[in-house]
Amino acid sequence: MISSTSSARKPFPIEQVHPALRGRFVIPCLPVDLEGSAGSALLEAIGAPEADVVFLATPHETSRDVAPVLLDAGLRVIDLSGAFRLKDAAAYPRWYGFEHYASEALAEAVYGLPELNPAAVRSARLLSNPGCYATSVILALSPLLRSEWVDISAGIISDSKSGASGAGRTPSGKLHFPEVNENCRAYGLFTHRHVPEMLQALDIGEKDFIFTPHLLPVTRGILSTVYVRLNARRTPGEVAAVFKEFYGPSPLVRVYEGGALPEIQAVANTQYADIGFALDEETRRLIIVSALDNLGKGAAGQAVQNMNLMFGLPQESGLI
Amino acid sequence: MISSTSSARKPFPIEQVHPALRGRFVIPCLPVDLEGSAGSALLEAIGAPEADVVFLATPHETSRDVAPVLLDAGLRVIDLSGAFRLKDAAAYPRWYGFEHYASEALAEAVYGLPELNPAAVRSARLLSNPGCYATSVILALSPLLRSEWVDISAGIISDSKSGASGAGRTPSGKLHFPEVNENCRAYGLFTHRHVPEMLQALDIGEKDFIFTPHLLPVTRGILSTVYVRLNARRTPGEVAAVFKEFYGPSPLVRVYEGGALPEIQAVANTQYADIGFALDEETRRLIIVSALDNLGKGAAGQAVQNMNLMFGLPQESGLI
Amino acid sequence: MISSTSSARKPFPIEQVHPALRGRFVIPCLPVDLEGSAGSALLEAIGAPEADVVFLATPHETSRDVAPVLLDAGLRVIDLSGAFRLKDAAAYPRWYGFEHYASEALAEAVYGLPELNPAAVRSARLLSNPGCYATSVILALSPLLRSEWVDISAGIISDSKSGASGAGRTPSGKLHFPEVNENCRAYGLFTHRHVPEMLQALDIGEKDFIFTPHLLPVTRGILSTVYVRLNARRTPGEVAAVFKEFYGPSPLVRVYEGGALPEIQAVANTQYADIGFALDEETRRLIIVSALDNLGKGAAGQAVQNMNLMFGLPQESGLI
Amino acid sequence: MISSTSSARKPFPIEQVHPALRGRFVIPCLPVDLEGSAGSALLEAIGAPEADVVFLATPHETSRDVAPVLLDAGLRVIDLSGAFRLKDAAAYPRWYGFEHYASEALAEAVYGLPELNPAAVRSARLLSNPGCYATSVILALSPLLRSEWVDISAGIISDSKSGASGAGRTPSGKLHFPEVNENCRAYGLFTHRHVPEMLQALDIGEKDFIFTPHLLPVTRGILSTVYVRLNARRTPGEVAAVFKEFYGPSPLVRVYEGGALPEIQAVANTQYADIGFALDEETRRLIIVSALDNLGKGAAGQAVQNMNLMFGLPQESGLI
Repeated sequence: MISSTSSARKPFPIEQVHPALRGRFVIPCLPVDLEGSAGSALLEAIGAPEADVVFLATPHETSRDVAPVLLDAGLRVIDLSGAFRLKDAAAYPRWYGFEHYASEALAEAVYGLPELNPAAVRSARLLSNPGCYATSVILALSPLLRSEWVDISAGIISDSKSGASGAGRTPSGKLHFPEVNENCRAYGLFTHRHVPEMLQALDIGEKDFIFTPHLLPVTRGILSTVYVRLNARRTPGEVAAVFKEFYGPSPLVRVYEGGALPEIQAVANTQYADIGFALDEETRRLIIVSALDNLGKGAAGQAVQNMNLMFGLPQESGLI
Repeated sequence: MISSTSSARKPFPIEQVHPALRGRFVIPCLPVDLEGSAGSALLEAIGAPEADVVFLATPHETSRDVAPVLLDAGLRVIDLSGAFRLKDAAAYPRWYGFEHYASEALAEAVYGLPELNPAAVRSARLLSNPGCYATSVILALSPLLRSEWVDISAGIISDSKSGASGAGRTPSGKLHFPEVNENCRAYGLFTHRHVPEMLQALDIGEKDFIFTPHLLPVTRGILSTVYVRLNARRTPGEVAAVFKEFYGPSPLVRVYEGGALPEIQAVANTQYADIGFALDEETRRLIIVSALDNLGKGAAGQAVQNMNLMFGLPQESGLI
Repeated sequence: MISSTSSARKPFPIEQVHPALRGRFVIPCLPVDLEGSAGSALLEAIGAPEADVVFLATPHETSRDVAPVLLDAGLRVIDLSGAFRLKDAAAYPRWYGFEHYASEALAEAVYGLPELNPAAVRSARLLSNPGCYATSVILALSPLLRSEWVDISAGIISDSKSGASGAGRTPSGKLHFPEVNENCRAYGLFTHRHVPEMLQALDIGEKDFIFTPHLLPVTRGILSTVYVRLNARRTPGEVAAVFKEFYGPSPLVRVYEGGALPEIQAVANTQYADIGFALDEETRRLIIVSALDNLGKGAAGQAVQNMNLMFGLPQESGLI
Repeated sequence: MISSTSSARKPFPIEQVHPALRGRFVIPCLPVDLEGSAGSALLEAIGAPEADVVFLATPHETSRDVAPVLLDAGLRVIDLSGAFRLKDAAAYPRWYGFEHYASEALAEAVYGLPELNPAAVRSARLLSNPGCYATSVILALSPLLRSEWVDISAGIISDSKSGASGAGRTPSGKLHFPEVNENCRAYGLFTHRHVPEMLQALDIGEKDFIFTPHLLPVTRGILSTVYVRLNARRTPGEVAAVFKEFYGPSPLVRVYEGGALPEIQAVANTQYADIGFALDEETRRLIIVSALDNLGKGAAGQAVQNMNLMFGLPQESGLI
């Protein structure tokens, strides 16, 4: 069942908002007033009684308030907002602009990047689906950081570029076609709210990391160009081996070798994250390039991957 | 002086809304509450006392109400809305959804397509600047219609395609980048509000004419593909001669010959309207292709061209 | 097995030309010199001995020469070129610029639009896959033409708009990114080579039909806006009923009602053709809008649909 | 006079390659065989006898060979290729793949970034117009490097993004519309040929600098996001003051303050380079963002600016 918190008053067919889905399956979207409901009325409204799991693609504060109710009712929850991404409740006012008081749920929530922590994902009751930019950056950096091959003190920079669908469906001047088309701009310098979940997942400090998002005139896709310095001289083959070993069991991460680099077209409309790199051996400077579809591996695809793990299915079920 | 009816409360530099204009000239945008002002307060608010002419790029109903006040104050007015495009006040409820009561101003208004009626433009006090689609279609059809070379009863069709800036700067779901990008859609079939001004300027009937607008994933430009049947067999050279004679004195209309056809790139970011055609001599079927920049010859550029004529300047001043 | 006639000398992985396919399956592309091979060498080169069917995505003249060899070897052939689309061999010099001498194969070839002639497709040995534009136009017009509801003498016009992938992968000045981007242009007026297959499939005459293709700045998709006049007054419901009955058994054609219209985003990256319309009841003027993905239902998807029928599979196998 | 080395055999009107210029002025493009001509025949062919200055927009090796001939004939030359950008002739085989033997001309050539060395530009006989990426990066970095505010040893990174027109008009698979559209990719990691002219102009070493170009799906514009660390704690106001003082006399460089950042739309179709920044005061990390039109300030516009200086005109003549 699909519920919608939009302004609609009556059930409407999914093709009204996603025309490509016309005729593929008949799932009415049911309007639900999440903020005005509570307790059993809420559960009823979203069809909870027959459900095993609820996906919340709601504003951060709505997720914060609704998820505990669902957990109490025995449901498992996959939340696509940022409401449960940061372990430190005190970080919310700075990065998200609101107070977080759902501390039990927050403590229980599992950050769902299944390539990093599949066991925790499998047993999660409350799964916090990572941000699209965050997935792109964390997948690029985790293998070498966990291998302790990176000179963190030299600084790590991710210069990331995203398509416009990453900002959601709500119209705004910034996402008006003529403002995005034939343009590219940087935004959120030093302040983007995906930074703290990257630092948390990578276990590095704010002063060692820069993340700069840019808006691209494409609908789907994120390309992250990540700059690090290795702490010892390595060959391209050695670096590739680290990535390949780390992602060997992962059906949705593709590692590039031999100088080939990911690009947005290779991942758009897919559920993959692609990773490649270029190494300047002598100076130990490494550029990692990662690409994913912000609506696929960066959001909905990853949510399904997490659900698969939570319910004992192969993680790539329905995704490849 | 530039006034703005947006939500701003204080004067702001023009580059806030048009970043490319940064540093080119210092013209503050002054907020003005057109709907809440009246009489001399209104005139003061928009800087009228020092002005010779006022350009109104306001909602239709605002123009309808404000233009008469400005005329009474002795100003000349160039209105870019649809408020004064239709001679028949009774047509407004159907096409624009509001009642028109400014009948004196309406009667006086001159439809400002200077290639058709330069004398009337020169002496206009209230100049109604044509719609972007309408300019595109009227310029394509006027020469042959005025020469009575068209078999009107066979039907005339304009299949027109426009960039997204034609719909203005107000964000909406329909103009959200991911909805326009990688898309093309028809809209307003049989009902677009530029139809009545086309019929009026071309002196043809609704049953003989179809206008179908489409939204293109480009920022600027309109391409109209216009289908007519000639009422006698003609050669391409004869057809070209009609266009060339008609637009000979017009510095902003370029006629193509020899099978070359206008395209959007030839006119985007220019003030030109381009016209070309292909003729099937035996069957007398003629396809006219016209192109213009909807913000140039289709709106602001034409408004300046009209101002030039109204003030005795060469019509292309500042435009080529 | 995939064979390639490109300049490659050695087998290469499919992701070299289609990066999104990386890791999905391991099918090497094998270079083959179709023009320099013949007889059994040719069959060997393209892996024919183990095959039941061969898809030819080759130049028209190559298909013309190779298909008979394959048929003689007992293979079934699905040809995506124009080599076998026209029944009249004498039409090839005018529309395709070459002589056609494969008259037996030409006589046997089945024009593979499965919504129109599924029985013929099922038993075809040589299946000629329709052009992308042609599919779009024929699907829009067939139901009403076969019902004899159209006043053909009033003329039929298809103003069609296509994404750039419709022109293939060969680089050219006309398809250079800066030439296509922020542009839209008409081309091939009265002369496009998809016209004769439309006339043949629709059984109408050249003087009654205009087809005008346009190039859109999108990668995938065709939108056709088709203008006809009905020969009797009908209601929208009656028109919809004709389309719905005609396409009732067709899993890959979606009919729109109630004024909803197809658009490119609804079909891009899908295998559907979508059809909707707007009717001006009083004047009997009807505008049909059809949309499809030129690489899906307009080419490769339709080829698979045809293969499915030829081998007794559900026509939508692997496509929905 | 405009000469063309393309395959044309006869003079052709400029609108054949630049349709927007139709009707604006009548300058025939004259075919010239630069490689097959020499001495006086060459001078005659390119109209040199009546000229004061020749713009060469030719392949690197053609410029290398032709420029000395023109200088010997007493002409001044503005070369838009890379043939005279590097002072060290020995660097050409590595970066450009050819030997450079025009050592006198090379020694004399002035690198024409007029904001840095206007006096040298004024007196130049052979002016080497900088690369588009190079202009973008050098303008971003020069003020702070010349002020010695940058901790060069911490490394400097320019992550740059360019529109497709930066790669020229020659069709190629990499610039085919469907390959660029809805895509973004990095290329030339550690190896782009604009790197040595950046190092030379900035007086920094290869090991301290990374330049990573990316291809954007836009026609015009370069956005460079440049990462440096300051060598002392500074306020944003102090950093802005350095930029403003440095570019105070420069009519074509616009400095942004107060957190505003350049974007491609602000410079596309203009002759400006725009520069802004964000500073993390405590960690002294500074992100400089520069934007320009790769065909404007990045190429042709800068060539005209240089010509203006060489002939005693205001540098912005014809450009603002």
